[in-house]
Amino acid sequence: MNHAPSEAALPRGFRFAATACGLKKTGALDLALLTSDVPASAAAVFTQNLVVAAPVVVSKAHLEASKGRVRAVIINSGNANCATGTDGYAASVKTVEETARRLNCSPQEVFVCSTGVIGVPLPIEKILRALPGITRNRRSSARSFAELSLAICTTDTRPKTASASFKMAGKRMHLVGCAKGAGMIHPNMATTLAFVATDAAIAPGLLQKTLRDVTRRTFNAISIDGDTSTNDTLLVLANGAAGAPAIKSGTTAHRTFRRTLEEVCSSLALQIVADGEGAQRVIEIEVRGAKKEAHAHRIGQTIATSPLVKTAFAGGDPNWGRVFAAAGRAGVKFDPGRVDIHMAGIPVLRRGQPVDFNERAASNRLLEESVHIILDLHAGRASARYWTCDFTAEYVRINASYRT
Amino acid sequence: MNHAPSEAALPRGFRFAATACGLKKTGALDLALLTSDVPASAAAVFTQNLVVAAPVVVSKAHLEASKGRVRAVIINSGNANCATGTDGYAASVKTVEETARRLNCSPQEVFVCSTGVIGVPLPIEKILRALPGITRNRRSSARSFAELSLAICTTDTRPKTASASFKMAGKRMHLVGCAKGAGMIHPNMATTLAFVATDAAIAPGLLQKTLRDVTRRTFNAISIDGDTSTNDTLLVLANGAAGAPAIKSGTTAHRTFRRTLEEVCSSLALQIVADGEGAQRVIEIEVRGAKKEAHAHRIGQTIATSPLVKTAFAGGDPNWGRVFAAAGRAGVKFDPGRVDIHMAGIPVLRRGQPVDFNERAASNRLLEESVHIILDLHAGRASARYWTCDFTAEYVRINASYRT
Repeated sequence: MNHAPSEAALPRGFRFAATACGLKKTGALDLALLTSDVPASAAAVFTQNLVVAAPVVVSKAHLEASKGRVRAVIINSGNANCATGTDGYAASVKTVEETARRLNCSPQEVFVCSTGVIGVPLPIEKILRALPGITRNRRSSARSFAELSLAICTTDTRPKTASASFKMAGKRMHLVGCAKGAGMIHPNMATTLAFVATDAAIAPGLLQKTLRDVTRRTFNAISIDGDTSTNDTLLVLANGAAGAPAIKSGTTAHRTFRRTLEEVCSSLALQIVADGEGAQRVIEIEVRGAKKEAHAHRIGQTIATSPLVKTAFAGGDPNWGRVFAAAGRAGVKFDPGRVDIHMAGIPVLRRGQPVDFNERAASNRLLEESVHIILDLHAGRASARYWTCDFTAEYVRINASYRT
Repeated sequence: MNHAPSEAALPRGFRFAATACGLKKTGALDLALLTSDVPASAAAVFTQNLVVAAPVVVSKAHLEASKGRVRAVIINSGNANCATGTDGYAASVKTVEETARRLNCSPQEVFVCSTGVIGVPLPIEKILRALPGITRNRRSSARSFAELSLAICTTDTRPKTASASFKMAGKRMHLVGCAKGAGMIHPNMATTLAFVATDAAIAPGLLQKTLRDVTRRTFNAISIDGDTSTNDTLLVLANGAAGAPAIKSGTTAHRTFRRTLEEVCSSLALQIVADGEGAQRVIEIEVRGAKKEAHAHRIGQTIATSPLVKTAFAGGDPNWGRVFAAAGRAGVKFDPGRVDIHMAGIPVLRRGQPVDFNERAASNRLLEESVHIILDLHAGRASARYWTCDFTAEYVRINASYRT
């Protein structure tokens, strides 16, 4: 599913670097830097959690002050710098100032992200010591992008990257993205950390509008454990280095750009679910026949976050009753007597009446790497898809001992 | 915590019976009958899940038709008779009719409950075969009540019973209750199956009002896994057999009755949490300093249903960052900079600033059987308590193989 982008897939005018500054006890990569040679149009969506980490507060303010222009993103893993009080806020500000000084740009053009444990003071001196090296070692190479995608990981078992391209005015435009996340994943307007860089040209306002639209069907349609992170950030940078004219709203170019951005975001979001803590498989929940897309989305989300549904999938149990029961408590009105359910292609409920099926055959299909569930309300024409993973004993093991 | 009620604790004028009719493959008790010698005032709260089981539909209708008068409750475990289509509905009706015929009362005076797996046809013939014996063997004995409390269990590791009494007009009134449930527990207006019988006299309308009030602070303040059952029913029967005059609204007797009913319901609700599937400990979450009780309740509920919070408690990890993050996504506005958090008596966050504490000492306290968490918003005077259990690998094991 995940192919590290090749040299040719990289957008022009971006450079990447990563290092191990000592935040992770294992000595793994934990500090990353992404820069654009020229100020790039930036759009971002952030966590809707009321408890927000210091770097989110700082980055939000910078994005507004710079009117959507960004030169650099500095990211650390191993510590979320959240609930760390005034010292934590000062640490994010200091990180941004020192990065800007070394890159010879304004602090407002620097975006900062942190991910890892909550409530532990950030040892800022480790980051400051590593800054000279990381700014010097920036490369626009496939290898340095791969290193960056690793340095942002926490409990991830593998990096998540995606790339795509499209043509416009005779020029080829590239998009490359990476994301992290395996737990505390239940995005609300954004997810954990994800970065997309493109050499297309597009104004910050239109980029933001396009990103919101795409996020609804990608990052906002996945859940691993129902817990929304305090550090969620999805950032897109467009530096125009491909040399094509700026993309205008409502044009064919805009539709192509949106579709390509959705392709990249969708790939990253699904890689996050596939690497969910302890996960064995991805479950795609498709809710059809709703009156409104929002209704279908809410039912999909309720099914996707039900521990009983997710543990049944861990055991390959075709327990469609739990799917039906979760839909029933979603807060959306529907007639249970009209509902159809298909599990992995097998009809199990038709117009509210159970259908006889071969349990063993169904169980075998549910043990595959990817499982598709369809719930049809027969109440309208709207639909939505939601992705989640199964809930295993391994998830509990990982999270009962995360800090120890 | 749970003491099986003695002979003296039983309310007068009720009889109990239980048998193994073959719904449970293990041959355990799975059919129970509770009868009142005279029609009793009845009040009930039911699941708010849109997908409701056939017995819930039938019992609701009967309660309305009989104007809150009930003679008998017939309960089976091992099959929820939910999502079983028109055959399932017919099975509940037939069960009620046959029970009424044998007890020589109207079908409308009979309440029916089912609990167990969803979506599997109910083998009604097994129940019908067992009815003559179970109606004949009713006893007003402590032993037959203990058998009834076992016959309603599914994945419970132990029965849940409670009793209390109070005096009024020189007469002693008794309340006795039992409940079942260990998974799919996230009551919404009611919980799984629970029955309370009393020999006090009280009109159905006042009993219903009192029950709703009590439920909010007891059964509606617990969660095991966030999944609301399709069969949730809490039923209270008051037959007046103690011989005291009827309890009137607003009197001292009414306040005493309400307090005693709350004591019984609270005990049963906490026994359900303590026996949560795979649970090692009970977590009490107290949210203080909210503007409204509903705000405190919602924050308590969000913390109580967070998989990350519950897995941390499984490992004795004082990961207060997850408690804070869960509060932040509860949908209630508050200022994170004013929040205090105490874990097992240890202050860990004060006015939004982390407090240094001994991690090892905290972890030891969190490994005890009962853990108390306090979150103070410093925004008002309202508070609420919510109870949950830790989330263990054993929960996953139980639910990945429930039907197989």
